[in-house]
Amino acid sequence: MKVYLAGPEVFIPEARAVLDEKIELTRAHGFVPVCPGDLEAPASLKGKARGLATSEVNEKLMLSADFIIANLTPFRGIAADVGTVYELGFMCGRGCPAYAFTNIATGHYERVLDYYGGDLRTDETGAVRGPDGLELETYDMVDNLMLDGGIENRKGVIVRHNAAPDRLYSDLTGFKQCLTIAARQLLA
Amino acid sequence: MKVYLAGPEVFIPEARAVLDEKIELTRAHGFVPVCPGDLEAPASLKGKARGLATSEVNEKLMLSADFIIANLTPFRGIAADVGTVYELGFMCGRGCPAYAFTNIATGHYERVLDYYGGDLRTDETGAVRGPDGLELETYDMVDNLMLDGGIENRKGVIVRHNAAPDRLYSDLTGFKQCLTIAARQLLA
Repeated sequence: MKVYLAGPEVFIPEARAVLDEKIELTRAHGFVPVCPGDLEAPASLKGKARGLATSEVNEKLMLSADFIIANLTPFRGIAADVGTVYELGFMCGRGCPAYAFTNIATGHYERVLDYYGGDLRTDETGAVRGPDGLELETYDMVDNLMLDGGIENRKGVIVRHNAAPDRLYSDLTGFKQCLTIAARQLLA
Repeated sequence: MKVYLAGPEVFIPEARAVLDEKIELTRAHGFVPVCPGDLEAPASLKGKARGLATSEVNEKLMLSADFIIANLTPFRGIAADVGTVYELGFMCGRGCPAYAFTNIATGHYERVLDYYGGDLRTDETGAVRGPDGLELETYDMVDNLMLDGGIENRKGVIVRHNAAPDRLYSDLTGFKQCLTIAARQLLA
C-alpha cells in the first residue's frame, strides 16, 4: 500500500533530511512512501507556470496513493498549513483512509481563545464568538471540524504531541504513531 | 447541476442572510445550490460527537454536488479557512470543477511578506525564507500552490476583489463572477 506523506516540513531548510527520515520509517512499517517532490516540475518552467505544474505533479502522486498521513501542525498562524489541508481533503474525497499528527498538542478551541486574547462572548443563540463576531467551534478538536471529522469518521486518528520549538516541523514522534496505527488497521 | 457553496461566512452573525443571498444568486444563474448546514446533525448530539456528525453531513452534501465555489478570503490570519480548503480539496479529489473568490485581493506572497514584516532572505539554493527559516512560495498566487493549482488546472478561476472591511465575509461580488464564469463553462 502506498501512503502520501503531506506536511509543511517541505518548507524548512532541512526538508530533504526530514522527508528521507519519513521515507525510511514508512518503509520500515511496511508501506510504500509517496512524497510531494518525488517528481519535479520541468526546470524550464518559471514563476506561476512552475507552481501550477508542481500542483499537477503532486495531484498525480496523490492519485497513485492509497491513503494519507498529514502533518497538521499549525503553520504561520493558528491553523494547519492550507496546502496540507487541501491534500487531506483531496484524499478523503477519493474515499481513502486518513491519519494525521500535530506537534502542538493544544486544541483548536484553545488556540483561537489565545488568538483573541481570551476575549470571547456567547450570543443570544448560544454561539461563542470573538470580538470580530466570528463564531468559534467549541468542540474538543485539533482543528476545524471538517479536518477532525474527515479523519476520525474514516477510522483514522490525529496524534497530538508537543515537540520542542526548534523541532516543530521535524519531530516525527506523532508520525511514527500514525504509521503504527495505520499498519495495524490496513495491513492486518 | 449542483454546486457546493463553501466558505467561512458560516461563522459570521449574518450567516443565514448571506447563505440565503448565495442560494438565490446560484438559482438565478441556473444551478442548484448545496450549502453546509442544509442538513443538520441530530440535536441530541453534543460536543465532539456533534462536530463529527456535522462533518459527516457536509461530506454527504459534497458527494451530492457536481462542483464547488469556495470563498478563500483569509480567515483568522493570512491563509484561507482550513474547513473551506478541506472542502475544496475534497471536491477536486472527486474530479469536480472548482471556482473560488477572495475578498482580499492581495496575493499569498505579499501577505506572507507582511506577516514577516518584510524580513525575507534568499538562501544559497535560491529559496526565499522568513526569519523562522520557512520557505515562501514566490509565485503570483492567491494562496498555497495546491489551492491555486487545483482550481486553475481544472479550468476554474479565482476571482480577487477588495471588499470593505465590514463586508469581508458577506461581499458577494467575487461569488457572482464565479457563477457567471461557471455558467458559461458548465451550462453551455
